[in-house]
Amino acid sequence: MENKILVETSARHAHLSAEAVEILYGKGAELIVKKMLSQPGQFACANEKLTIVGPKGSLALSVLGPARPATQVELSFSDARALGITPPVRESGDVAGTPGLKIVGPAGEIEINEGAIVAKRHIHMTPDDAEALGVSDKEIVKVKIDTARPLIFDDVVVRVNPNFGLAMHIDTDECNAACAFGAVYGEIVK
Amino acid sequence: MENKILVETSARHAHLSAEAVEILYGKGAELIVKKMLSQPGQFACANEKLTIVGPKGSLALSVLGPARPATQVELSFSDARALGITPPVRESGDVAGTPGLKIVGPAGEIEINEGAIVAKRHIHMTPDDAEALGVSDKEIVKVKIDTARPLIFDDVVVRVNPNFGLAMHIDTDECNAACAFGAVYGEIVK
Repeated sequence: MENKILVETSARHAHLSAEAVEILYGKGAELIVKKMLSQPGQFACANEKLTIVGPKGSLALSVLGPARPATQVELSFSDARALGITPPVRESGDVAGTPGLKIVGPAGEIEINEGAIVAKRHIHMTPDDAEALGVSDKEIVKVKIDTARPLIFDDVVVRVNPNFGLAMHIDTDECNAACAFGAVYGEIVK
Repeated sequence: MENKILVETSARHAHLSAEAVEILYGKGAELIVKKMLSQPGQFACANEKLTIVGPKGSLALSVLGPARPATQVELSFSDARALGITPPVRESGDVAGTPGLKIVGPAGEIEINEGAIVAKRHIHMTPDDAEALGVSDKEIVKVKIDTARPLIFDDVVVRVNPNFGLAMHIDTDECNAACAFGAVYGEIVK
């Protein structure tokens, strides 16, 4: 297997609980698939965009489906500055003690007490990918990106799951810093 | 000499020609020092901020002094996207064929036909610094940043001049990608 990892950029987005979906989009509302993503079962939603409101400003926000146990908002530091909050760099789901936000939808709004994070860069892969690439779940690796603005991302966490598709996820700031526009591939270096 | 380079983040800014200063701020106007910067003679201006206007949006813009032979606007890719332009990554002064912009000041406005760039990351240093660090003018090096979001910037150009102060300059996207907030130092790696 070639050491060649698709690098995908995640713009700011929310994962919503089923309860949040109903408050924001109305009783009985569900998340509607607009486009399936590289991670099997995950999708960009066709539902109307939400608005997130922080102490300093507000931003439009896309939603990814399906619904999850807890509502979480993944931002870049650029986004966070515009909102006036200071989220930590965290892995998805690890939201204890992170800043809250107001989320406004077409049918209602919620105030989350925590859940705003800057996603720690990571690589999704299957156990077969991991074996072929010689890495293991939770391993920290470096990933070299060779673009018009080449760099080596350090502290990239490997996440192994049979339901994953092989892809590295970075945020929009990281994408801009690396000129990782379009179809870009990285290489794991140790 | 320790291999320890101060990493400074340049937010979007303009360098203006003397002619542009007079059009934007009024006949006889000059750039006023607000704060001296790490590069000797260079300063942040106390003059009112300008507005840059692109096809998709506008942004407030700080000015750095003193005036230069040609007007130039240094942006991040985040800024460029908000404006609706696609500048290349270039070294300061190398603006041939880059996108133009409208620049609006309190006394007038100018339309530049070229001059919008995303600054290529670089390290300013004196000949003594270069000798001590074992690098030379125009050399391309890597710089390792050890922060909460560590990475190694590749394709960093060394710029040697007796009038420089030792500092690496990155833009706001690169700063966010590296969590290079506050007083951060990098290390040249080859």
